[in-house]
Amino acid sequence: MKVCVHGRSRHCRTVSFSARTNEVVLIEQRKLPHTFELTRTKNYKQTARAITNMTVRGAGAIGATAAYGLAQGARAFTGKTEDAFARHMQRVYETLAAARPTAVDLVNALNEVRAAMAAGKTITSISKKQKSALRAAEKFADDDVAHCEAIGKHGAKLIKNGTRVLTHCNAGWLAFVDIGSATAPMYAAQAQGKKFHVYCDETRPRSQGAALTAWELAQQGVSHQVIADNAAGHLMQRGEIDLVITGSDRTLGRTGEVANKIGTYTKAVLAARHKIPFYVAIPLSTIDWDLAKGMEIPIEERDESEVLGAWGVDDRGKFREVRVANPASGARNPAFDVTPANLITGIITPKGIFKPRELWANRKRLGAARS
Amino acid sequence: MKVCVHGRSRHCRTVSFSARTNEVVLIEQRKLPHTFELTRTKNYKQTARAITNMTVRGAGAIGATAAYGLAQGARAFTGKTEDAFARHMQRVYETLAAARPTAVDLVNALNEVRAAMAAGKTITSISKKQKSALRAAEKFADDDVAHCEAIGKHGAKLIKNGTRVLTHCNAGWLAFVDIGSATAPMYAAQAQGKKFHVYCDETRPRSQGAALTAWELAQQGVSHQVIADNAAGHLMQRGEIDLVITGSDRTLGRTGEVANKIGTYTKAVLAARHKIPFYVAIPLSTIDWDLAKGMEIPIEERDESEVLGAWGVDDRGKFREVRVANPASGARNPAFDVTPANLITGIITPKGIFKPRELWANRKRLGAARS
Repeated sequence: MKVCVHGRSRHCRTVSFSARTNEVVLIEQRKLPHTFELTRTKNYKQTARAITNMTVRGAGAIGATAAYGLAQGARAFTGKTEDAFARHMQRVYETLAAARPTAVDLVNALNEVRAAMAAGKTITSISKKQKSALRAAEKFADDDVAHCEAIGKHGAKLIKNGTRVLTHCNAGWLAFVDIGSATAPMYAAQAQGKKFHVYCDETRPRSQGAALTAWELAQQGVSHQVIADNAAGHLMQRGEIDLVITGSDRTLGRTGEVANKIGTYTKAVLAARHKIPFYVAIPLSTIDWDLAKGMEIPIEERDESEVLGAWGVDDRGKFREVRVANPASGARNPAFDVTPANLITGIITPKGIFKPRELWANRKRLGAARS
Repeated sequence: MKVCVHGRSRHCRTVSFSARTNEVVLIEQRKLPHTFELTRTKNYKQTARAITNMTVRGAGAIGATAAYGLAQGARAFTGKTEDAFARHMQRVYETLAAARPTAVDLVNALNEVRAAMAAGKTITSISKKQKSALRAAEKFADDDVAHCEAIGKHGAKLIKNGTRVLTHCNAGWLAFVDIGSATAPMYAAQAQGKKFHVYCDETRPRSQGAALTAWELAQQGVSHQVIADNAAGHLMQRGEIDLVITGSDRTLGRTGEVANKIGTYTKAVLAARHKIPFYVAIPLSTIDWDLAKGMEIPIEERDESEVLGAWGVDDRGKFREVRVANPASGARNPAFDVTPANLITGIITPKGIFKPRELWANRKRLGAARS
């Protein structure tokens, strides 16, 4: 998407690759929204570290970073024997796979690139494998963009002139290679010339809505305002929200239940009460075809410090963390919640919009694509 | 309630009066939860300023501060003539009444003290009027405490051993002279030896739950944890909340609708979905017997900076404000919302617990008391 740097607008992917210098190029997300900066990882170990330390986050963006990291590792190999190359690639694979243990997309991406490399089998093919690794990584990234574009194409029809959209957390282009999932219908509608307004839930405790989604929408010139997580119910009650679109961390193909950032369930309950359409936009890679019950999805409880404090920049632009809560008090910090299918109007996928309970019947069509 | 200062526990009201020095003594609420400090206002102008600058906040606490301020002004008069005293008292009254223009309790409190002074009518009665002013102010404060105690007595039966209570914002003793409204049942249940746990909604954007309610509960040794406003729905869904008690800024006597801090409505919707009892604890002074529709209650939209930033102390204990949100983005900041009667299980008053729609039939009983 577009980024405005020093008053000049340019196109930029969240994750890209410089073949000339063999570097992965990442938007440094830990400094957003206060500083826009591209960072370059010089080798696969640095790339793995960028995933671990959350320089890059979000399913699609992590997947593409890992794919490029594997190609980067392959291209850095200067040895001669196929055996040495195989041992080297195993190290690269394991290092990248361990960068974020729970990110399914990361391992899928690595496997995809590795499978592409396995096509060449003779000793002289090391350089061919290096080339096919990069081609496979580029394809992974391009596919991610294409899937998000397809989500946008299907979802854009939900947004009309004057529509007031609520979104939660960040399922935007910063979480993917480009375009995003929940934001894709917005960017597509904007490209069609529609005028609409987006309310970004702040999304405490990590405030991804206030920090990242608001930043993204500002870069693209989409009309938007941040609201406290407490305010959405009031705005719905007053008839000031027409549509909700969120992302999903895991969608159960068997039941249509959606696990997503804490607070998503609350917004779905409110939307159902006010008969406001509630959509979830997902790449196919987040569909879990195995799990039978949403209540079985393990909910990560993160460190209480996230709830007890906040972070941002002071009036001199210096980054600071502050303790907001009573110093002697503790906190609970569940990071995700599960929204039942009957609160979800539709699931926007690259293959079209489905009712949550229709996913299973369409599993061949939906499972066939990689992501 | 109890406050622990330098490891020693003592009893302290939010608002009190030192007759010897003619000073109003206030808990400096702007420094909580990070510093506990009592501040003394030396004259009625300082007292008015303490109301304006939010050294003291909350309906009952503001009312008592204003009542003491009027007595303080009366007692500072050293002139001789009744006329001069009357002119002086008019100035005192107007200064205090203007301190927070929308606080109904403030004017009610001033009128109550002024009425008590009007009993003495001869020139020699200035000193009697001064005495009756202080007596009336003390009575106002004591009544506030007695009403909160009565709320606690009625509400305590809702809390059993093991009950997990959710509360929103701060309707605690810091908002009253002592004890509080939503917290009164908790303190009464604690006094009865019951063991229970309180979840404090952070209550963005001003975080009164994380800062003030958590501080209060910690001082009294009540088991509690702060949660993000997004987390209550998830905890209810998992069966981890048994009861919700909030305060109210305005309750409509005709309909039972409740206007309270933004986010209250959302919690009521969630509680209804999960069949969790939702109670509102109120002093009688917050009942509005005139307004016919909750949607007619004007909802204050406060400055967007509250939503876009946060404040607290850094790791050296220095107070700081930080900008959390994208610097180029704006915000909506509705400060209150309205909860319809059918989502409210009961209204806990000093006169007992009523269904919201029973208020009107009981208006004589409920309207008779001052607060």
